[in-house]
Amino acid sequence: MMRQLFNLSAFAALACGLILTMNLNAETEKPKDDEARLLRHVVLFKFKADATKEQLQEIVDEFGKLPEKIDAIEKYEAGLNNSPEGRSKGFTHCFLVTFKDEKGRDEYLPHAAHQEFVQKVIPILDDVLVVDYWTRE
Amino acid sequence: MMRQLFNLSAFAALACGLILTMNLNAETEKPKDDEARLLRHVVLFKFKADATKEQLQEIVDEFGKLPEKIDAIEKYEAGLNNSPEGRSKGFTHCFLVTFKDEKGRDEYLPHAAHQEFVQKVIPILDDVLVVDYWTRE
Repeated sequence: MMRQLFNLSAFAALACGLILTMNLNAETEKPKDDEARLLRHVVLFKFKADATKEQLQEIVDEFGKLPEKIDAIEKYEAGLNNSPEGRSKGFTHCFLVTFKDEKGRDEYLPHAAHQEFVQKVIPILDDVLVVDYWTRE
Repeated sequence: MMRQLFNLSAFAALACGLILTMNLNAETEKPKDDEARLLRHVVLFKFKADATKEQLQEIVDEFGKLPEKIDAIEKYEAGLNNSPEGRSKGFTHCFLVTFKDEKGRDEYLPHAAHQEFVQKVIPILDDVLVVDYWTRE
């Protein structure tokens, strides 16, 4: 009975340690094991005041087509800012692109389809912000 | 046979329409059905130059405890910016908090645990950026 309890405690301690390690990794650095990690790519757009509704929709549509054109994109989502906090600094569009790893990002950034898209956005873009970070599924 | 083919075509057209509608919704507005929607809350922090490494780690740790304290948080992830593009405007920390809906966000923003966290961050915070958007699972 005591040995069973001891084994159980040891297992629980190990499990807690593992969970703790996983959380710390997710928050601060590249996870150690390659399997579960994901590289997020957050892109915020602020458009020029004279950009038309149709132009903005075209940009959203064109960005939305990149996952079909670029294999490195594992996941894609996008939406319009609706935060009630007033801390968006004029950024209205958010895009969350997910890669498996830096190799995926290295394929994406110079990819012809991405570069073609960038050239379409630039004329109506007032500002852009990009941050990438490691996370887990 | 012809009727079967017709039915199949009608079904395919309907399915395509449904998928198209879902994609457009995901990109531009609140999805129509409540089941599959998620509200993302993107928070970027830029810390004061004299903030210590220990202070930054404490903030990351404290933010990471909010999901245990606030039921409205459906998902949480966080990481350090590692974008090679140089477009992060000095924001170094990204947090992605997910709610089911505005009700979840309305619970989160004024929640005592969140407000307590905010008071801890403010003294070492140089800048903050927040955007929220609707997406699908």
